[in-house]
Amino acid sequence: MHTKLLSFLKEKEREILAFIEESEVQKYIQPNDLCAAVRAYIFRPAKRLRPAVLIMACGCVGGTEEQAIPAAAGIELFHTWTLVHDDLIDNDSLRRGSPTVHQLMAEAGRTGLSLAGKTAEEYGRHLAILAGDMQHAWAINLFIDLATKRNLDPRVVLKIISWLESYVTGNLLAGETLDVQLGITDITGGLNFSEDEIIRMLWLKTGVLYEFAGLAGAMIGKGATDFEDPEVKAVKEFTGNCGIAFQLQDDILGVLGDQKVLGKPVGSDIREGKKTTILYEALRNANEDERRTILQILGNKNAGADEIKKIIDLFKKLNGIDHTKQLAESYIKKALPCLDPIPASKYKDLLLQWADYMINRDF
Amino acid sequence: MHTKLLSFLKEKEREILAFIEESEVQKYIQPNDLCAAVRAYIFRPAKRLRPAVLIMACGCVGGTEEQAIPAAAGIELFHTWTLVHDDLIDNDSLRRGSPTVHQLMAEAGRTGLSLAGKTAEEYGRHLAILAGDMQHAWAINLFIDLATKRNLDPRVVLKIISWLESYVTGNLLAGETLDVQLGITDITGGLNFSEDEIIRMLWLKTGVLYEFAGLAGAMIGKGATDFEDPEVKAVKEFTGNCGIAFQLQDDILGVLGDQKVLGKPVGSDIREGKKTTILYEALRNANEDERRTILQILGNKNAGADEIKKIIDLFKKLNGIDHTKQLAESYIKKALPCLDPIPASKYKDLLLQWADYMINRDF
Repeated sequence: MHTKLLSFLKEKEREILAFIEESEVQKYIQPNDLCAAVRAYIFRPAKRLRPAVLIMACGCVGGTEEQAIPAAAGIELFHTWTLVHDDLIDNDSLRRGSPTVHQLMAEAGRTGLSLAGKTAEEYGRHLAILAGDMQHAWAINLFIDLATKRNLDPRVVLKIISWLESYVTGNLLAGETLDVQLGITDITGGLNFSEDEIIRMLWLKTGVLYEFAGLAGAMIGKGATDFEDPEVKAVKEFTGNCGIAFQLQDDILGVLGDQKVLGKPVGSDIREGKKTTILYEALRNANEDERRTILQILGNKNAGADEIKKIIDLFKKLNGIDHTKQLAESYIKKALPCLDPIPASKYKDLLLQWADYMINRDF
Repeated sequence: MHTKLLSFLKEKEREILAFIEESEVQKYIQPNDLCAAVRAYIFRPAKRLRPAVLIMACGCVGGTEEQAIPAAAGIELFHTWTLVHDDLIDNDSLRRGSPTVHQLMAEAGRTGLSLAGKTAEEYGRHLAILAGDMQHAWAINLFIDLATKRNLDPRVVLKIISWLESYVTGNLLAGETLDVQLGITDITGGLNFSEDEIIRMLWLKTGVLYEFAGLAGAMIGKGATDFEDPEVKAVKEFTGNCGIAFQLQDDILGVLGDQKVLGKPVGSDIREGKKTTILYEALRNANEDERRTILQILGNKNAGADEIKKIIDLFKKLNGIDHTKQLAESYIKKALPCLDPIPASKYKDLLLQWADYMINRDF
């Protein structure tokens, strides 16, 4: 169904990773542990949606794929640093099927430096902070490669980096902060957060970077310095809306998905007590008994498989899953007409296939 | 003695802070707690040496002060994010005389979000990570202002940012990682680190950014895209060497300095067990008894005032202080001739006064 898109993703992944591997920045990354921490996520299997969207956005306004590769590598590295710091803050154990950076480095501390217990864990946390910082810097350098290795007008490059490091990072970190604050909010008393708040967080934590992928790709493709360029605006609005749909679908998979394909244990979103539109809708429709059951299990790190199954069944029964599916579809419906001004091309087709994939995927 | 320099510092501080205050990036920094965390250090009293050196470097090759202001603001923000993450990693309590960001945010968690004990501390740590990340992004934007607000050739701006985000950040984070690793090294068995290693860390953690201040300032002043420009090379070698001297003097003040002027408690470097050239030299010259005394007190967070005094006296007696003073002087001696090719000017005078100040200051 999404064959062309999936083979495009695979092909671009190879090129992006090759570009990252060739980057001169690596010679400044040391010592060994920091280098391993920085590289860990980058080369694990992943979908590479953000870089692919950036390349398609470049192509659909008349640019070449080749032109966009440095920025595609840049957005992948940028995304990676936010993952490393996010995993540390959430104290997650797995990312892309393997240990998170802070866990990996705690292990490096135990085996390589003979550190014990708490000291090893602290070492892991410290290195995760520094690894994310390094990836952030590396990402900026990859964007600069647009000018030095692809001859893009330096003014366009500065415009893109400036937007990334103000609006995008600002909103993303606001989302991360709100997520931290919402995460420690006690909801046992009931719904003290609104669906709008949840969707705003999806926008900040995910939508904004997908919007940027569209914006940056289109600006590169047109050599535009103007955010108000109609094609740039069209593409960015399209990718931003699809980004929200992506995250809504991700929340569904976080409940229903299979451990093997997701790379994290079934029910981990429930054990973490993640506040999603699924939970919101289910609580809204729950009777006293159901509400008590949900709130008892939610956020319990040691919840057993039977308890997780009980919650999943309630989420289904109380319309949580279907409601979120409909929400995701509504964002795709909003996205599609944005591409109307863009002429037909292989890349427009790929973008449309990607939009469909956002709500019809199981990993 | 350093009157002209000190009044220059004060004057530039005002201009830099005004430039930061006017930056549009601030409108993307939210919610309130993150905003407070990001702003905390910036507006506390500080010497602002790095931005001042950058401005002097620009002036001494014929540029105007006005041209360099965005980069001066940028290097201050860049330095700030490294402080926030460094304080978190070291779990320091005070910076510039007030609570560190993670402490400040733990308090915000307690009072504003009614969090208790460990949860408040975690909240503080999470926000310190995110605040540093935001400052990092903001710093890049301030450098981009060189092009948009001062009309500097965008290629020069890209060259400067690229160097900052590869060589400078790479070395800085390598220094930070080595510092973490050295910090957990047990030295009770004796000297398992060398003086060269300590000086390499000073170079990575401090020298590299001072070198960058000279490099960036001179490139801006000349509109040069070439790192090999003889004047650029001269200025950067000068500021890099002075940067090492600065840190050596800082280590001396960390032992002998006065709490009121330093903004941190007397003996805090000793209680932290900081590995300095002072300690190295003292241990090298110590007899069995003296060595035992030093190693017993060093790194003891609860060491009393009398114990701290005992160590300070040993550091003096065993040549630790004088040796480090001589080391600092040797780097200044190495720096001075670098400026020979630079024509006489107000800014060259200021740079020379700054070099002298590096080893003749008491705060």
